[in-house]
Amino acid sequence: MSVYLHDIPLDEAQARIERALAEAGLDGVLGEETIPLDETAGGRTLAHPVWARISSPHYNAAAMDGFAVSARDTAGASPAAEVRLALGERCAYVDTGDPLPDWADAVVPIEETEPKYPDPAGPHDPRRPAAIAIRAALAPWKHVRAMGEDMVATELVLPQGHVLRPVDLGACAGSGQTSLTVARRPMVALLPTGSELKPVGAPVGVGDIIEYNSIVLASQVSGWGGAPRRYPVSPDELPVLKAAVAAAAREADLVLLLSGSSAGAEDFSAQVISALGELLFHGVAVRPGHPVIFGMVRAGDRNVPIVGVPGYPVSAALTGEIFIEPLLSRWLGRRPFEPQTLEVEMSRKITSPPGDDDYVRVVIGRVGDRTLAAPISRGAGVISSLVRADGIVVAPRGIQGLSAGERVPARLYRSPDEIARTILATGSHDVALDLAAQHLASSGRRLVSANVGSLGGLLALRRGEAHLAGSHLIDPESGEYNLPYVRRYLPETPVVILAFAGREQGLLVQPGNPKGFVGLEDLLRKDVVYVNRQRGAGTRVLLDHELAKTGLAPDMIAGYDQEEFTHLGVAAAVASGRADCGLGIPAAAQAVGLDFVPLFQERYDLIVPKAHYNSDLLAPLVALLQDPQFQTAVSGLPGYDVRRMGTVVAEAG
Amino acid sequence: MSVYLHDIPLDEAQARIERALAEAGLDGVLGEETIPLDETAGGRTLAHPVWARISSPHYNAAAMDGFAVSARDTAGASPAAEVRLALGERCAYVDTGDPLPDWADAVVPIEETEPKYPDPAGPHDPRRPAAIAIRAALAPWKHVRAMGEDMVATELVLPQGHVLRPVDLGACAGSGQTSLTVARRPMVALLPTGSELKPVGAPVGVGDIIEYNSIVLASQVSGWGGAPRRYPVSPDELPVLKAAVAAAAREADLVLLLSGSSAGAEDFSAQVISALGELLFHGVAVRPGHPVIFGMVRAGDRNVPIVGVPGYPVSAALTGEIFIEPLLSRWLGRRPFEPQTLEVEMSRKITSPPGDDDYVRVVIGRVGDRTLAAPISRGAGVISSLVRADGIVVAPRGIQGLSAGERVPARLYRSPDEIARTILATGSHDVALDLAAQHLASSGRRLVSANVGSLGGLLALRRGEAHLAGSHLIDPESGEYNLPYVRRYLPETPVVILAFAGREQGLLVQPGNPKGFVGLEDLLRKDVVYVNRQRGAGTRVLLDHELAKTGLAPDMIAGYDQEEFTHLGVAAAVASGRADCGLGIPAAAQAVGLDFVPLFQERYDLIVPKAHYNSDLLAPLVALLQDPQFQTAVSGLPGYDVRRMGTVVAEAG
Repeated sequence: MSVYLHDIPLDEAQARIERALAEAGLDGVLGEETIPLDETAGGRTLAHPVWARISSPHYNAAAMDGFAVSARDTAGASPAAEVRLALGERCAYVDTGDPLPDWADAVVPIEETEPKYPDPAGPHDPRRPAAIAIRAALAPWKHVRAMGEDMVATELVLPQGHVLRPVDLGACAGSGQTSLTVARRPMVALLPTGSELKPVGAPVGVGDIIEYNSIVLASQVSGWGGAPRRYPVSPDELPVLKAAVAAAAREADLVLLLSGSSAGAEDFSAQVISALGELLFHGVAVRPGHPVIFGMVRAGDRNVPIVGVPGYPVSAALTGEIFIEPLLSRWLGRRPFEPQTLEVEMSRKITSPPGDDDYVRVVIGRVGDRTLAAPISRGAGVISSLVRADGIVVAPRGIQGLSAGERVPARLYRSPDEIARTILATGSHDVALDLAAQHLASSGRRLVSANVGSLGGLLALRRGEAHLAGSHLIDPESGEYNLPYVRRYLPETPVVILAFAGREQGLLVQPGNPKGFVGLEDLLRKDVVYVNRQRGAGTRVLLDHELAKTGLAPDMIAGYDQEEFTHLGVAAAVASGRADCGLGIPAAAQAVGLDFVPLFQERYDLIVPKAHYNSDLLAPLVALLQDPQFQTAVSGLPGYDVRRMGTVVAEAG
Repeated sequence: MSVYLHDIPLDEAQARIERALAEAGLDGVLGEETIPLDETAGGRTLAHPVWARISSPHYNAAAMDGFAVSARDTAGASPAAEVRLALGERCAYVDTGDPLPDWADAVVPIEETEPKYPDPAGPHDPRRPAAIAIRAALAPWKHVRAMGEDMVATELVLPQGHVLRPVDLGACAGSGQTSLTVARRPMVALLPTGSELKPVGAPVGVGDIIEYNSIVLASQVSGWGGAPRRYPVSPDELPVLKAAVAAAAREADLVLLLSGSSAGAEDFSAQVISALGELLFHGVAVRPGHPVIFGMVRAGDRNVPIVGVPGYPVSAALTGEIFIEPLLSRWLGRRPFEPQTLEVEMSRKITSPPGDDDYVRVVIGRVGDRTLAAPISRGAGVISSLVRADGIVVAPRGIQGLSAGERVPARLYRSPDEIARTILATGSHDVALDLAAQHLASSGRRLVSANVGSLGGLLALRRGEAHLAGSHLIDPESGEYNLPYVRRYLPETPVVILAFAGREQGLLVQPGNPKGFVGLEDLLRKDVVYVNRQRGAGTRVLLDHELAKTGLAPDMIAGYDQEEFTHLGVAAAVASGRADCGLGIPAAAQAVGLDFVPLFQERYDLIVPKAHYNSDLLAPLVALLQDPQFQTAVSGLPGYDVRRMGTVVAEAG
């Protein structure tokens, strides 16, 4: 049974953590250790300032290969007046880096000298002539690296709390350090709990969940400077769990109790924490991720902080960013990690619960001179949404979301350069477009598709929110593809209609077609449940067009209102038994092992505003469509016809 | 003897590397390996795309704790009309994540049900009532995580060449992967050469150089995904070096031959490469770092690329960034690392040799609404300049530098946030100001000092290039400190003169004061060489003022023209024997173990434009100066008087 004690605001949660850490004496660096000064020190945090022990250079050194001299001996040398210096007590060869003799205060570079040999026919070692002639006077300390030029003994080399970069290691070594005192890595125990969880590699049956939050959080912890240790999955049994937490707490500075996705597991977490110590909060007003738990458990004479991490993977990963990273930074004595931010314009409205800080995953792209952020799936269970996200936008507590056009800072998961190289595709989903995305990676373009259906794509282009839209809209009156829609919805935007592929459409059915589907009329059968595409999808328009042609009424089809947003979504619905069939493309059937009943042939084009068609950004895509190798790859997909791929079908606007 | 074959342009060097790699079949991923899917996979690069092996979820799962039902059984339920469902074949309790029974297509959350128990006095398990009553009808698939909601089997999870982040590991695991095929880490051998090089920890005598380039480059290589291996220092002996390179090449994918700073070592490098294979270039028109060498050596049946890395530490680190990182990225099959960039305005002119790409280290700060970049020391031997640098600005080949006010992109070494938190101090150098920088770190401010002398500081404030200037300028006429100069040089800028410290000034002399210095008149002695501060430095103004008072002529002082830019620079000059004495503060004498002859008392103030004095940025500094703990720390430095610290001495402008 799910009983959240109370969802408290994020700042209140952070304040409670602060207080508890201060009371336990855990609000600073946990400890320090002295490590060798070598490449393994990179990334560690200095526990103390580093002061130079010796100067660098630690002696006056020649900065060039040449001859050490006393500057006053060169007085009078000029292009017109040679000065000759005999090698010996007042002139000696030095290599770069060599110490300067006591009597010397300058170096004449060898290329600015003329060597004089006693025997012009004898051996000529330019480092050991009898004398040198020079034609320019030197100022004292010319071509000399003075002692302390780089660092003077006792000077501050690096401050406390500094995270060591490669060059810092060089500066430390150059200033005479032979070891470094750094903050000890906090040991973080990761304890997954939930009888339904199976470790990676174990056989997975229906009802089992692959346990990977411990891997995600261990990788986060390791990147943030902690030492993660993953424990085996604990079943939802109170005594077992209590023993496991107690054992982990004895070894760790922080215990992360990773609940399975069932609320039951969370209750066990809260109970275990209460039993072994003190539960400080259960529930934070943050979305996704609100069932976060925080407490302190006793381990011998220590109090060990423990965080109950929610089971949904997006919640778990964000719990890491919001709660665990600042904690580790504090224990390492450094400033919390600051994500790069970029001001973005919301392309769509977001509605958020006013009581929560809502962390919205977004895809970001530059279209013309606007940097647009489009929200992506908000399900806490959809880890692929975090993988696809270019950043996070926070709709703060106290407001009801963000409006379209609002400008807000996004915390970036990708560099601004990567975002500038992103082609935003919208409209209809197509499997071969995913293949194009693969191929474009090598030319430095990221092709990101928002699947809003063909019609939705044209509307997005009208709002200037994408670089191109995939479309396969048949006009019921003319039977013509796309152009009539472009004229209707984009009357004022000059666009190019670029042929992508001819595609087969048909019914995705169970393997072996057990219900014997032959045509659309089968959808009206009593024993048949259909899965549809969303309104505005080309496939939906095609279905309606074909139904109208044959006089079949949509409201006689069971499941007509059951909508999916992609071909693969339809395929998954059929594969899982949620429906008996759905209209779609054969590649989607093949993807999940379904059979396919071909019915229609259609045209899938790319609608590209001319402003983007001729841009550097899209050039590699236009070239790719004309690349025979890519065309061959696409024609290998079932039901694809690439004969017109890459040709301009029409221009409009 | 230094013989550079020819300095070729950077793009030509890169083209030669390309060609040589292509000929050797080394222009792509070196190899792949299959590794376990756990946290250690973070940071590795995918050698192949990852496609989903199973859907996620791989079954239709309850998204809430509640009762699995068939949506059609809930038809008619409304606030006014309760529908009652008996637990059994068409209604069953499910936890979040549980698979949905075949007959169910929706979940009623437990909190939206009213449990009905046969015996109201009997045991009440809300998961096992006899029936539930509901007051809202459900749509099919409500509160169900449909199979494939996250990922559908065969869908692309991650593209080839992707560098794995923590969430990516989760997505891979969730899509059924149990291991990952990633690019093998290129093995990079680092071989320092030069008889003058001593490893960290070895005793260091005059003429010895601490070898740390191998540590810096190993740390770089490791951060860029390679596997570094450091070899012991090889002496400058051709046969030894040849054997060492041959041995390293047999084990490595890339050999880095790290020359000592002497040009002799570089010649050995070139000779060794020619002897063991082919020398492809020696010298690239890049500053600093131009004596880069590239070649291919034979190792068994393989050709192994070898880079001769220049010995100066700044050159060595930049060689890593310019040449080694792109090579490793190519071998890992990923795009080269893209540093974050920021548009900056040059605060000073830079003159560069027109034939070179000049990599200029800069300090960056925001003053008002300008993001200013000030060039710092350009010596290739000064690694502390790389440590202090906020970024790099490139003055490209073909032009003669960058002009003041020019806007150029800077490659950042620090985040823009860190730069926004930077207080740019200019003017006179002071040891206690360095201490303030230490203390400010904890309040998130970085205090960066440019040492341009007191007068230079006032001029920098006039140009709007800094937030404050340290100044100790005595007015010869009135004997008053700072205010007369502020009135003269900043007539139109409202400023606050904030007392920092009273300081002692005197002569820095050899330990024991062997030359028996007593006062300024000793500077005129024939056996004395003086080291001066630069024009515009407060200490120089003080010297000139005191000389004038006593009627001594500067041109009678040997070394009057020998200029240093900081107190520590003067101290180092005396310590190294370049001079017998210099005027400065006792803290500098103490720093390098010199003795101090006190002569004068002076006032060191901070000149702060009012626009900055009241800013959030400077608030922690203003507070720090009034903090008794900090004042005590400063008064612990020799010769400091903190009685007026933090008080406003005057306002002007």
